[in-house]
Amino acid sequence: MAQQWSVAVVGASGAVGAALLAVLEEREFPVAELYALGRADADDDTLVFANRSVRVKPLAGFDFSRCQLVFFCAPAAVAAEHVPRALAAGCRVIDLSRQFRSDPAVPLVVPEVNAASLPGDAGLIAAPGAPAAQLATALAPLQRAAGLLEVRVTTLLAVSDRGRAGIDELAGQTARLLNAQSFKRRVFPAQIAFNLFPSFDAPQESGYTLGEQQTAAEVKKLLADEQLVIDVTELFAPVFYGHSQVVRLRTREALTPAQARKLLRKAPGIELVDGKDDCLSPVGDSAGSDAVLIGRIAQMPEQPDWLTLWVVADNVRKSAAVNTVQIAEILLKPQT
Amino acid sequence: MAQQWSVAVVGASGAVGAALLAVLEEREFPVAELYALGRADADDDTLVFANRSVRVKPLAGFDFSRCQLVFFCAPAAVAAEHVPRALAAGCRVIDLSRQFRSDPAVPLVVPEVNAASLPGDAGLIAAPGAPAAQLATALAPLQRAAGLLEVRVTTLLAVSDRGRAGIDELAGQTARLLNAQSFKRRVFPAQIAFNLFPSFDAPQESGYTLGEQQTAAEVKKLLADEQLVIDVTELFAPVFYGHSQVVRLRTREALTPAQARKLLRKAPGIELVDGKDDCLSPVGDSAGSDAVLIGRIAQMPEQPDWLTLWVVADNVRKSAAVNTVQIAEILLKPQT
Repeated sequence: MAQQWSVAVVGASGAVGAALLAVLEEREFPVAELYALGRADADDDTLVFANRSVRVKPLAGFDFSRCQLVFFCAPAAVAAEHVPRALAAGCRVIDLSRQFRSDPAVPLVVPEVNAASLPGDAGLIAAPGAPAAQLATALAPLQRAAGLLEVRVTTLLAVSDRGRAGIDELAGQTARLLNAQSFKRRVFPAQIAFNLFPSFDAPQESGYTLGEQQTAAEVKKLLADEQLVIDVTELFAPVFYGHSQVVRLRTREALTPAQARKLLRKAPGIELVDGKDDCLSPVGDSAGSDAVLIGRIAQMPEQPDWLTLWVVADNVRKSAAVNTVQIAEILLKPQT
Repeated sequence: MAQQWSVAVVGASGAVGAALLAVLEEREFPVAELYALGRADADDDTLVFANRSVRVKPLAGFDFSRCQLVFFCAPAAVAAEHVPRALAAGCRVIDLSRQFRSDPAVPLVVPEVNAASLPGDAGLIAAPGAPAAQLATALAPLQRAAGLLEVRVTTLLAVSDRGRAGIDELAGQTARLLNAQSFKRRVFPAQIAFNLFPSFDAPQESGYTLGEQQTAAEVKKLLADEQLVIDVTELFAPVFYGHSQVVRLRTREALTPAQARKLLRKAPGIELVDGKDDCLSPVGDSAGSDAVLIGRIAQMPEQPDWLTLWVVADNVRKSAAVNTVQIAEILLKPQT
């Protein structure tokens, strides 16, 4: 019988945790026992995994020696406190928070981009943020073929970047506005319904946010190129699922849009959307998809070393849940 | 008594036409007689201007010799047909369509940017599209102070770019979605509620749309710099009023964000929004404002010749109606 692992999911009731459980089930990850972990007050929650009812248990005090693999879908502070406990108990850990992503000793992995950089015996692996996972997937085939010098990206973040609370705020505000009712802001600093604004995630001295700086650093680490010039602007948009990116990039060797399409079409994890380029969109295409979708590719005739790509991916499913399960599938393989 | 002009507004019932009438009234433009013109089937419409009831009359057959100044807030095909008639009747014409913007013989004007390029006796003047008006206003002070080499801008277009029909489609779709009802698409090629997609305005061989190419050409003409590298991407976003722009620019001489803020603060037509940078937004700030609003300005420490600006302006009021009335106010001044 194939190897089976007992698995714990921290933050199992959140938007990413729920998507992760769905993907584990769909891809038939060999789960012996599933432990769903959450806040101490979460143990009224019950969820369903593989036709079994699973009660969410408090993370505090959980005995990690009961399992072999732990997924952390929780804020960085939770990871900082509990990941060391899981590692000490001998578990392998995939952390989806920003806590360990910049640690040089911790591999940061998107399998389509840098599976080779993942040591077979790694105890702790970090998964990147959704904007970096999506961007690195789109960039990697072009980097390999033509070299990358400069990337300037504008990301329109979906509200699910802020989990269920972000989703609820957009839905609730929109309904109240259409009924001419007032509303409170909780997650976002400005009205998010019918509006747009820059990410507000810890502005730095440079004018960029911490989140933007981290996305840039994660992409450099994923592409193993510390010299890459990468300029990231992140905005919030009134979209539930799917981050959209306008990616401008300068390659070392010039590529025509047709050459870029050819490279991207055969790249893993990417679906090139031809024909309906002009309305490739989060709602119409990426929601629920397991691919990074690339639509139109534009080039100014006088700038043959620049390309502009329109890139959309489901931030919760593709960039977080699917990516994480793909990492776990690598861990599962017998080491050669 | 001050000079008074009889004025005709073509497309008076549209979103821009209505805003133009409001701004003419607010700024006390000296209107002797007002003629509101529209489609042949529009003559049931009545609107109110300066406390007078004005009936919308058909454009076809209107005798332009009755007035001195005509505003065309109508599609390019309408301008192509009727602007020559108005000019032949001796009117001065300000056209808001794309019909004449690229004609070297027709001045293209944003008074804060290039009022000096407007000949006092100009018969026909073109007003730029809202994305170009907003962008040129933000760029001009930096161009003057430090020189501009390269601009890469992502514009999030509000649905009012497509007039009342665009506004109705976003409102209607959103309401129907929240009530789990189906809807038809008319103006936009994809669902616009809770979604984003690239502008679909006549895609060209280059991958850019005609609209994007025209915005770039208009900005070059406004800034009188045909050598400027300007790379424009336009997306539609589910916002009613206010185009938002992420503007990346490279100056000839390096500018710090603080220096840029100082230049922009004293520039005409610009309001620098300090302090609440992170949520400067179309809904919160630009709707109904007569300024181009600039929020955060970011710079990567290793790239002192690049800046990223967040720029928001009301596309209907500021970039179209106010800009047009400001042009008319220049025409009104006695020539020296």
